[in-house]
Amino acid sequence: MNKAILLEKRPVGLPQLSDFKFVSNEIETITEGELLLKTTYVSVDPYLRGRMNDVKSYIPPFELHKPISSGIIAEVIDSKNTAFKKGDFVSGMLEWKEFQKSNGEGLIKADASKAPMSTYLGVLGLTGLTAYLGLTEIGKPKKGETVVVSGAAGAVGSIVGQIAKLNGCKVIGIAGSDEKVAMLKSDLGFDEAINYNTTKNMAAAIKKVAPDGVDIYFDNVGGPISDAVLLNINQFARFIICGAISIYNNTELPKSISVQPFLIRNSALMQGFIVFNYAEKYPEAIKQLSQWLAEGKLSYTETIVEGFDAIPQAFLDLFEGKNKGKMLVKI
Amino acid sequence: MNKAILLEKRPVGLPQLSDFKFVSNEIETITEGELLLKTTYVSVDPYLRGRMNDVKSYIPPFELHKPISSGIIAEVIDSKNTAFKKGDFVSGMLEWKEFQKSNGEGLIKADASKAPMSTYLGVLGLTGLTAYLGLTEIGKPKKGETVVVSGAAGAVGSIVGQIAKLNGCKVIGIAGSDEKVAMLKSDLGFDEAINYNTTKNMAAAIKKVAPDGVDIYFDNVGGPISDAVLLNINQFARFIICGAISIYNNTELPKSISVQPFLIRNSALMQGFIVFNYAEKYPEAIKQLSQWLAEGKLSYTETIVEGFDAIPQAFLDLFEGKNKGKMLVKI
Repeated sequence: MNKAILLEKRPVGLPQLSDFKFVSNEIETITEGELLLKTTYVSVDPYLRGRMNDVKSYIPPFELHKPISSGIIAEVIDSKNTAFKKGDFVSGMLEWKEFQKSNGEGLIKADASKAPMSTYLGVLGLTGLTAYLGLTEIGKPKKGETVVVSGAAGAVGSIVGQIAKLNGCKVIGIAGSDEKVAMLKSDLGFDEAINYNTTKNMAAAIKKVAPDGVDIYFDNVGGPISDAVLLNINQFARFIICGAISIYNNTELPKSISVQPFLIRNSALMQGFIVFNYAEKYPEAIKQLSQWLAEGKLSYTETIVEGFDAIPQAFLDLFEGKNKGKMLVKI
Repeated sequence: MNKAILLEKRPVGLPQLSDFKFVSNEIETITEGELLLKTTYVSVDPYLRGRMNDVKSYIPPFELHKPISSGIIAEVIDSKNTAFKKGDFVSGMLEWKEFQKSNGEGLIKADASKAPMSTYLGVLGLTGLTAYLGLTEIGKPKKGETVVVSGAAGAVGSIVGQIAKLNGCKVIGIAGSDEKVAMLKSDLGFDEAINYNTTKNMAAAIKKVAPDGVDIYFDNVGGPISDAVLLNINQFARFIICGAISIYNNTELPKSISVQPFLIRNSALMQGFIVFNYAEKYPEAIKQLSQWLAEGKLSYTETIVEGFDAIPQAFLDLFEGKNKGKMLVKI
C-alpha cells in the first residue's frame, strides 16, 4: 500500500496534526515516459504554511483534500522514461506520498558520489539557493559591512551567515536558544549571536554588537525582531524579506513599527524575495555553493527525523524552533 | 533691517508657531566672490519637519537658534562674484532670511524668460525632480500598469500622477477633500481619485477603482492610507517611499500593518527615496520636465501666500492639507 498525506483543513493560526489526513491507496502503475519514485527524504519548510492558506501568492495554495507537496529526494524504482533509470536518485517538488509516479518534468538527478543525498534538499537545493541568491542579488554584500540574519540557526539562515562571512562581512545571528547561539558562533563562524528568547531589549542588544549599524538584514522571521533591526539600520541598508515565520500563524493582520520613516531617512530598501524568480541564476549559484562545500568552507546543519508518519509533526516543530539547520524527514 | 526665522524649539508632535522665532539683524556686507541676495519665493515642504528633529538622517538636523533653510528663489541685488550679476535670479537651498549673502555655491540661475519663476522651486525644481526620478528610477512604470499616488494633490503627488499618465499608466490619486479630488480628475487627468477623509474603508475603495491591483505606489503619506494600498498590491509591486506626512508628527513610533508577508507573497519592493541620491540624473530629468512643460503636457498647481512673516504658518498649513500643489511664500 501507498500512504499519502492530504491537507484536510486549512489551519487557523498554528497548524495542528488534525489539519492533516493520512490515506492509503494502491501504488500507481506507470506508462510510457513515466517513472515510479520511492520517497527517501522530505523537506519541511516554513513557507509551506503560506500555501495552506487560501490566499493569492507566488505559488497557488494547496488544494484541500489533496496531497501536500514540498522538496523531496526520491529513488527511481521503475522507469519507462529514457532520461532516468532504476536506481537513480532525483530531487524535485513532489507529493507527500511514499510512492508516486512522475513524467520526469522538473526532476533533477541527485548524485550521491558528489555530495550527501540530503544536501540536494539543503545547501545544494532551494535552501542554499535561497540563501545565496537572496544575499547576493538583493543584499549585495560588500566587505566590511554588517549583516544581521534572523532565524539564523534555521536552514536558510545558517547558510546566509556563512556566505556573508565568505564575503568579508561582520555577521550577527539571531536565534532562539543558547544552544543555537553557541552553534552559530563556534560551528558556523558567526561573529556574534543573540538569543531573542532571553534578551529583553533586542534593539539595544543589536546596537551593542553592531555599533556601526546594520547594512544588510536577511529577514526570516518578521515581527518584533525585525522591528528591532529596523531601529539600527544604516544609510542604504538592504532588507531581504525572505520569511516571516513569527507571524505566519497570526489570524489577524499583525502590526509592526511603521517602516516608512526609517526607509526614507536611510534611503533603505526592502525587497520580498522568492527564489523562483531567480531561476536563471541557479546554475552559477549551485556551482559556487558546490565549490565552497567541496573546499570545506561551508558547513551545513540538519535535523533529521525518521519515518513517513513523522512528516506533519516535523512541520509543526518548525514553528517551535525545534530544528537546527535544515529539517528533513528520512523515510 | 533684515528679518530671519530661527528654529527656537524642536517641535514635539505637530509644530507650532512658538517653535519659530523672528529676529532682526543688519544686512550683511559682501566681500570679493560673494553676492547679496533678496529672497523672492520660499518653498515650504513636509520633509523640513524631519530636519527639526534631532535625529540621524540623510541631511543633518536643523540647529536650534539658527535660521531654517529650504528651497528659495532670490534676486541678486549686489555681486562681487563674476558668475552672477545684479538682477539675476537664482534658486538654491538658502536660509529663511529677507536678505543673505552667498559665495554662489549650489546656486542655479533661474531664467524668467523660459518658465515662471516659481516653477524653479516646483515642477522644474526639487519637487519635479523628486516626482520624476522617484517614479522612473524606482517605480519603472510600464504602459498599462496601475499607479496609486497618495498626497496626490500635493506638490510632488500632483506631478507624479501626470508623469505616470504620460507613461501610459492608469493613475489613482488619494487626497483629503472633494475639491482636491475634483482637481485631480478634471485638471490633472487622473483616472480616479479618492477622498480619504470621507472614505470609511480605503482598502475596499482602492480595490474598486483598481480591480486589477496596484503595481506602483508613490507614497507621500505613510500610515493607514499606505496600509490600505498594501492590501491591494500585485506581484512585483514597487513602493516608492517618498514621504510620510501622516506620521511625521507622531511622538511615539507609529505602528502599521506588517509589510513583510505582503512583500514576500508579491516579490514586492519598498525603497526609501531621497532625490539627492540621484543628482547625476538631474540634467536629463530637468530636460524632460522642461519639454513636457513647454509642450503643455504638464500642469502645475501652486498655493502661494504672501509675506515673509507668513512662512511659519504656511509650513504648519501643510500638515492640515491646506495647500493644493506646491506651497510657496512670495516675499
